[in-house]
Amino acid sequence: MRRVAVVGAGMTSFGEHFALGLKDLLPMAFAECAASVDAGIDTSDLQAAWFGAMGTSDGFPAGILADSLGLPDLPVTRVENSCATGNDAVRNALFGVASGAFDVALVMGADKLRDTASADMMWEWEAMARDMAWDYPLGVVAPAGFALHVRRYLYESAATPEHLAMVAVKNHRHGATNPKARLRFEITLEQALAAPTVVTPFRLYDCAPQSDGAAALILAAEDVVDRFTARPVWIRGVGLGLDSVMHQHKTDMTTFPATTRAAKRAFAMAGLTPADIDVAEVHDYFTGLELMSYEDLGFAERFGAAKLVETETTSLGGALPVNPSGGLKAKGHPPGATGVAQCVELFQQLRGEAVNQVDGARIALAHNIGGPTAVSAVTILEGPGSDGD
Amino acid sequence: MRRVAVVGAGMTSFGEHFALGLKDLLPMAFAECAASVDAGIDTSDLQAAWFGAMGTSDGFPAGILADSLGLPDLPVTRVENSCATGNDAVRNALFGVASGAFDVALVMGADKLRDTASADMMWEWEAMARDMAWDYPLGVVAPAGFALHVRRYLYESAATPEHLAMVAVKNHRHGATNPKARLRFEITLEQALAAPTVVTPFRLYDCAPQSDGAAALILAAEDVVDRFTARPVWIRGVGLGLDSVMHQHKTDMTTFPATTRAAKRAFAMAGLTPADIDVAEVHDYFTGLELMSYEDLGFAERFGAAKLVETETTSLGGALPVNPSGGLKAKGHPPGATGVAQCVELFQQLRGEAVNQVDGARIALAHNIGGPTAVSAVTILEGPGSDGD
Repeated sequence: MRRVAVVGAGMTSFGEHFALGLKDLLPMAFAECAASVDAGIDTSDLQAAWFGAMGTSDGFPAGILADSLGLPDLPVTRVENSCATGNDAVRNALFGVASGAFDVALVMGADKLRDTASADMMWEWEAMARDMAWDYPLGVVAPAGFALHVRRYLYESAATPEHLAMVAVKNHRHGATNPKARLRFEITLEQALAAPTVVTPFRLYDCAPQSDGAAALILAAEDVVDRFTARPVWIRGVGLGLDSVMHQHKTDMTTFPATTRAAKRAFAMAGLTPADIDVAEVHDYFTGLELMSYEDLGFAERFGAAKLVETETTSLGGALPVNPSGGLKAKGHPPGATGVAQCVELFQQLRGEAVNQVDGARIALAHNIGGPTAVSAVTILEGPGSDGD
Repeated sequence: MRRVAVVGAGMTSFGEHFALGLKDLLPMAFAECAASVDAGIDTSDLQAAWFGAMGTSDGFPAGILADSLGLPDLPVTRVENSCATGNDAVRNALFGVASGAFDVALVMGADKLRDTASADMMWEWEAMARDMAWDYPLGVVAPAGFALHVRRYLYESAATPEHLAMVAVKNHRHGATNPKARLRFEITLEQALAAPTVVTPFRLYDCAPQSDGAAALILAAEDVVDRFTARPVWIRGVGLGLDSVMHQHKTDMTTFPATTRAAKRAFAMAGLTPADIDVAEVHDYFTGLELMSYEDLGFAERFGAAKLVETETTSLGGALPVNPSGGLKAKGHPPGATGVAQCVELFQQLRGEAVNQVDGARIALAHNIGGPTAVSAVTILEGPGSDGD
């Protein structure tokens, strides 16, 4: 497979963009992305696009993307895979370029949740992210479904609600300095533990805010990468993993097989191991997911995740900073955009340009797990200069 | 790019499957597809899947596919691109295999429209297939939007309502003998011309029936194709094309730039021309679209399509049979399944196994154009034995 690099990356801030539709957010993210290409990019260089979007608030997604960029001739595929949508869009664009069909491709992700129309849409989204005949009528929407897992995880492991709160405190601290984050304030452990309960064991600060936003990446094949930058960020591995949709089919609630499958595939493709990762953006839609994902991604032993937050290993300054952007927790979560935005953050980390820079970051990992805990996508990136470039 | 072949193909009948959900239809289509693989296939051979689905009636699409096949470990990407969804799923699966990431992949398409829940969903679907701020509030849903084009086409060209009716008569005649078709009866020109008007210039028999159904293909890379069959059907070209979503931005209503772009890309990749095509499945959601598409695909000169139906060139027995399956018109149209089912029909045509066999068919083309006339996907296939296999 020929190698493919990210040569540009950009995103809007994530937030409540009541006055902006996807037709505004997409060109804003694209403009920042295009401006980040060292040697510049002409829109005529873009041969194909992949668009991660769960929702359709402005209408036909693929066409809205092409139209709002003023590129009606650009072939656009919409990809949807619940909260793993963004990283699966990256994965499909990678295949398009690696196959030789295209030398340069655009990946975008966007969703819009915070307006009147979308308040109704939230229920449609919940329905399309689980089993309509079983889990949905039983009320197993996203917070409830994830809560079942994390509650069992707290019961079986040594982790406590304090460890969940530590994840919230860490990610709020990271996000406080990220101008793209929605919740730019720090919280204390006491605040987190005293906040009202959303669904046991999640209190308010254990939950990430649904948000509006868009993110963009430009991918280029190794053959043409020099036209755009001398500092490419290589896509070393991608992996997609699924699991049973219905909760009654999940035999162990304390692990997410979707993540272990996605991670196994991505690491195998990259020829790397979890120990090689210097910085990661990990799905923390709810704090407990970040903890459990440490284990599923191979960063911690089984039931050993709590130790990583206790020892601040995954804080900025630690050995393996996780969610330096603030994560979904503080940055916000427009599902289609989230995975792409994780790669925007890691592109900047690997080029030494991030707001919360991890010193010497060379290999990075992005991870999402989707609604019914039935899908996960993992992307592994490598910085410039680390493999002879 | 390494070559990729279709080694198996199957589908459900298209119809009003009130008692069946996607969880039933998907395994039914897959079973027929697996049984069509000459040397057999083990589900463990399947390394990845692409699932074309506009709707989400049963819940999370990617997971529902994997679960209902009993393959929770299969990574599935859902692709959505309006009525071009099925052929774009084929295109993305092709890239996945051609890239070298996978040797064997599954492509499925399915949608379910004919039940109570889906009756409400039809309006959601219409909204996601056009511009929500402009065309949709003005009532430019699928029949109305396509009618604007065809009405202008009839005004500017020599084609008449009789030519639309000839397409309906032809496709009903073809579909009458196809056990997978929903409308298995012939109609007369007089019946077509006397039927009630749906939206001018479309009368009842100018419109295809929304239906339930699923279709499946198994793709294999050239390196492993011999493990499955000595009669592979090669994917020679794929093309995706877009156009402006809003009708006020369309400068010429008598042609679909989405199709010309998709066809140009598919023919360029295949190294073939329209004259090479022996049999085609062409988007006839409304009869006039088949006529106009003859021109956009290069089968007829501009405004020369009427002559092809007058001379029965595109009937079975003619020089270029179009929609031997009955087309969307008689077979039915579950959007996510339609493009995949077109390739199922052409797979059988190119292996000499079709119900309405086109003698000596060697090269075939599948084509769809999506809702807001803003997206088209084209797939070009080549039969076994024709290039040295």
